[in-house]
Amino acid sequence: MKKLSNEYIEEVVKACRPFASKGRVVDHIPDLDQSHLSNLGVTIVTLDGETYSAGEDEDHFSLQSISKVIILLMALEDFGKEIVFQKVGMEPTDDLFNSISHLEEYEGRRPYNPLINSGAIATASLIRGSTVDDRFERVLELLRKITENKKIKMNEEVYNAECNNSARNKALTYFMESTGVLSSQETENALELYNRMNSIEINSLSLAKLGCFLSNHGRLIGGKKQLIKPDNIRTVKAIMLTSGMYNESGAYAVNVGFPLKSGVSGSIVGAVPGRMGIGIIGPAINKKGNSCAGGEALRILSSDLELSLLHDRNVVNL
Amino acid sequence: MKKLSNEYIEEVVKACRPFASKGRVVDHIPDLDQSHLSNLGVTIVTLDGETYSAGEDEDHFSLQSISKVIILLMALEDFGKEIVFQKVGMEPTDDLFNSISHLEEYEGRRPYNPLINSGAIATASLIRGSTVDDRFERVLELLRKITENKKIKMNEEVYNAECNNSARNKALTYFMESTGVLSSQETENALELYNRMNSIEINSLSLAKLGCFLSNHGRLIGGKKQLIKPDNIRTVKAIMLTSGMYNESGAYAVNVGFPLKSGVSGSIVGAVPGRMGIGIIGPAINKKGNSCAGGEALRILSSDLELSLLHDRNVVNL
Amino acid sequence: MKKLSNEYIEEVVKACRPFASKGRVVDHIPDLDQSHLSNLGVTIVTLDGETYSAGEDEDHFSLQSISKVIILLMALEDFGKEIVFQKVGMEPTDDLFNSISHLEEYEGRRPYNPLINSGAIATASLIRGSTVDDRFERVLELLRKITENKKIKMNEEVYNAECNNSARNKALTYFMESTGVLSSQETENALELYNRMNSIEINSLSLAKLGCFLSNHGRLIGGKKQLIKPDNIRTVKAIMLTSGMYNESGAYAVNVGFPLKSGVSGSIVGAVPGRMGIGIIGPAINKKGNSCAGGEALRILSSDLELSLLHDRNVVNL
Amino acid sequence: MKKLSNEYIEEVVKACRPFASKGRVVDHIPDLDQSHLSNLGVTIVTLDGETYSAGEDEDHFSLQSISKVIILLMALEDFGKEIVFQKVGMEPTDDLFNSISHLEEYEGRRPYNPLINSGAIATASLIRGSTVDDRFERVLELLRKITENKKIKMNEEVYNAECNNSARNKALTYFMESTGVLSSQETENALELYNRMNSIEINSLSLAKLGCFLSNHGRLIGGKKQLIKPDNIRTVKAIMLTSGMYNESGAYAVNVGFPLKSGVSGSIVGAVPGRMGIGIIGPAINKKGNSCAGGEALRILSSDLELSLLHDRNVVNL
Repeated sequence: MKKLSNEYIEEVVKACRPFASKGRVVDHIPDLDQSHLSNLGVTIVTLDGETYSAGEDEDHFSLQSISKVIILLMALEDFGKEIVFQKVGMEPTDDLFNSISHLEEYEGRRPYNPLINSGAIATASLIRGSTVDDRFERVLELLRKITENKKIKMNEEVYNAECNNSARNKALTYFMESTGVLSSQETENALELYNRMNSIEINSLSLAKLGCFLSNHGRLIGGKKQLIKPDNIRTVKAIMLTSGMYNESGAYAVNVGFPLKSGVSGSIVGAVPGRMGIGIIGPAINKKGNSCAGGEALRILSSDLELSLLHDRNVVNL
Repeated sequence: MKKLSNEYIEEVVKACRPFASKGRVVDHIPDLDQSHLSNLGVTIVTLDGETYSAGEDEDHFSLQSISKVIILLMALEDFGKEIVFQKVGMEPTDDLFNSISHLEEYEGRRPYNPLINSGAIATASLIRGSTVDDRFERVLELLRKITENKKIKMNEEVYNAECNNSARNKALTYFMESTGVLSSQETENALELYNRMNSIEINSLSLAKLGCFLSNHGRLIGGKKQLIKPDNIRTVKAIMLTSGMYNESGAYAVNVGFPLKSGVSGSIVGAVPGRMGIGIIGPAINKKGNSCAGGEALRILSSDLELSLLHDRNVVNL
Repeated sequence: MKKLSNEYIEEVVKACRPFASKGRVVDHIPDLDQSHLSNLGVTIVTLDGETYSAGEDEDHFSLQSISKVIILLMALEDFGKEIVFQKVGMEPTDDLFNSISHLEEYEGRRPYNPLINSGAIATASLIRGSTVDDRFERVLELLRKITENKKIKMNEEVYNAECNNSARNKALTYFMESTGVLSSQETENALELYNRMNSIEINSLSLAKLGCFLSNHGRLIGGKKQLIKPDNIRTVKAIMLTSGMYNESGAYAVNVGFPLKSGVSGSIVGAVPGRMGIGIIGPAINKKGNSCAGGEALRILSSDLELSLLHDRNVVNL
Repeated sequence: MKKLSNEYIEEVVKACRPFASKGRVVDHIPDLDQSHLSNLGVTIVTLDGETYSAGEDEDHFSLQSISKVIILLMALEDFGKEIVFQKVGMEPTDDLFNSISHLEEYEGRRPYNPLINSGAIATASLIRGSTVDDRFERVLELLRKITENKKIKMNEEVYNAECNNSARNKALTYFMESTGVLSSQETENALELYNRMNSIEINSLSLAKLGCFLSNHGRLIGGKKQLIKPDNIRTVKAIMLTSGMYNESGAYAVNVGFPLKSGVSGSIVGAVPGRMGIGIIGPAINKKGNSCAGGEALRILSSDLELSLLHDRNVVNL
């Protein structure tokens, strides 16, 4: 097993950068364009508080689909597992992240799971607060605590772009209204909150801290306070394991083997229980919506550092 | 955390038996009928060699879909990961276990994964041997070693029933021939081998030993010899985690949290890495094909014994 | 062959009324409720100007999906066949009238045809006019000419209900925006025009005159003026023949055999080329969205009066 | 309106031949290859017994999917409308001719209609006869009468190729067995009869006579004897109108407007009620399975000769 160091992360970044050329940068996010194609930033925060980082790890980017993890955490805290999973399933799907077809066919017409677009919008309707502003403020507050970064806020320009580019998500939302998953009161608020959360600006260090928080079962490193119930953390990680990388989740379970969630900005958060959190930004994404270089980095890290939950070293012997 | 004992398993069986009434016993397997509805047998073999068991743990039953685990193990050993996953995907699916639609639509028309019917038939074409007899003999030999049970063999009556009831699987097989997943030479042999493997007779102790073998990374308990490469064992367990319980796999990842595979006979094999193997027989199955009482037993065992891979205790601290 | 008379129509109505009990009245249209269940009105206007009528033929009801015929006629006149069928297909579908799935899968992602909801909304974007008011006024003007009824107008109450109950159609519309079938400029206007057109109030006499106008190749009875080009009339009737009765269109082609279009209010317009127009209102609809009693009336009329285009009498001998 | 003559058909053939270059000849039929790409034969037989013909009208080719028309005619005669349409639907579909997905989803799991592969195989199980030989002999006998060609027989070479290339149809057949559309007794006979019928050798003159027979309501020209009941002829023609050209049927209803059925050999039979039968062979087919040059010929013929059922001339004035 290799040893963690900044030099080691540097090598991984160098080895993975060329994989970016297989992907493309999405064109609807204003602070991202093809000039970011070969960027790659990798940051690891271990549970004993060390940070290792390399590449374009100071790039800021929007949270995009990684917000789905926060949405699910808050909904579980606010309403509990039973109510959340009446509104949304917990099954992985072979459909694309923005698929609408299954809402028409799937039993009960619930979204398959909370980590695809429809599921996240439905779950967002289960975050408490009297107004969208209140609800969003609660989200920011949690995220600031988890990342120990008080400056975290929404990027206005990205938010405007999200709103102007939301036809597909509007379709998903109104479809769910038509089948009773969302009430007409919830529809627009849920989508508005979802758009704001996607537009939260973050960097790879903050992502790594989010991963670390999940790995540490809902406590800050060195902290005693349980910010989120361990059972909810476990639920979120289990769903990340089966569904966090869209319809490439199965391959990531085999080749990486710990809970992950990707965003269309090319970001990925990883949580290695008991060991570390990982934050990655690599804007060139493949057809399934996952960072090309970032995915390769995860495969190398998992192999070199023996991070898979199914690896023999990651086992408590009786 | 509760302590393992025969009495404890007895209690679990007693608590779970009533759940059988929510399901039904399949009617096409000759040695099973509705009189087995409330049967439940649970056997655990730990990695230090202890056995705990209760209920109808002496019932014999056919392997059914649990054979898919053996098929995948052997194909990986015989041809390697790359060739296997050219023929079959590794993604979980929301479709039923015997679905054919996705073969028409899914990219490349490969079956989604090796743990649904189409995928297992395709994978069965990758077990080496000059004849179906040879290939089946190799399977039995491996299974006899793993279970330390030299008597394991095919149940002829079940096999005949499988053959007479194979229209759906024939459809899957010929469809794959029509799209090039299988060559016309492979078609009938693959299905024949698949039918024989489904008809292998087993009991909950042997299943628990199979689980134990997977938990022990491909070695017998107390044995030094690596019967299957650890990387192949890991691959199989990762796919069991995301896809082992048909389209209930996501819920099992959340509520149970370790690799599982179920069969339509109401059997389930579980592998808790580093700790134990679990064998269950509970013939009453739900609409998704999983044992009603057996599933409940797994949820209780996972909670009581803290077996989830995502539970904080199952974590190596640095 | 039976002879047309008011008494004959009376008999047909009497014979068909009991079929209403197999259906139900939709509950989202304010001027319709279950008290209308067994209503049935049938009006026939022949090309030589005679009118035959019986039952609740004075009931007023909203045009609902029959508006799709008018939308298509106007779009063909305004932009021509080529442009219209770039935006929407002309193929029958086995999907439900409000299906969204196929927009995700179907080649080019055009709606299948202009007589399902998505297709009609897309086609509505091809009616000329500087504002929605202008465009709707042009529609009313045409409809008033065709029906020789200057009072035809929108029912405000129905319109409000349409708008409040439009989540599914919003989903279809935004989905088409997301795939480029509609531009973001067109989206809301197209849906607004569609909602207004569905809310136009009509009766069975006016429907029969619409059918008569189609049967008379785009001219009023006794009129010389070609209000709509014959080729456009033919196109509309051909699509009515293959797709006018949702996913029961094939059965109607076999059992009735001339162009039809139904609406969820239980209304049906029929056009028997060269012979007559038929207007029907029978609010109890079946699961496929077609009037139960009205459908039976059409089968009887077609048989008694030998109306099928494929009947040997409806043939010009050389 | 143009006048029918051999010279006129010659011109049509000349004008349409270039359209063949947009298609390709299927490669699994032994008596067809790319050298036939630009072949085009068109034969018309009118109800007053005249024949007009041009191009490669002496080419022999296998009936392929046009056999579905004969299968349906015989099943309707043998078992009647009610029983036939319990086994198979009568709705057009947007799916490909060899689609299997809808058998999994569609209500009742019947094939959509008798003119797609699954539907024709199911319908073939409803042709009476104690053996496949008997049943096939009855088919040949009918076809020989209709075409007044006693030499019509199966092409052995084509039949062998059909059998060797039948994986997809086997899949459809066994799938229908698995869902109860076919009993296990019927499965293999139905497919065997279907393969033989597809392999019947024919030419454009015989096809035109088949069309003529349908146009003449089930009687030979000049004959008094009703070989097939008029109601069954009408049913077959109605289904040809909505579903005869696979998922291009809607476009043909609009642009050609009379009952048609195509085969993958590039053949098309057309029936213009009361006027004529049309036989076409043009082996280059498009992606939807229809002859490129043949389709163009039909569009020109329909326009020039005013053949659409919806054309104002094809109307009986009261």
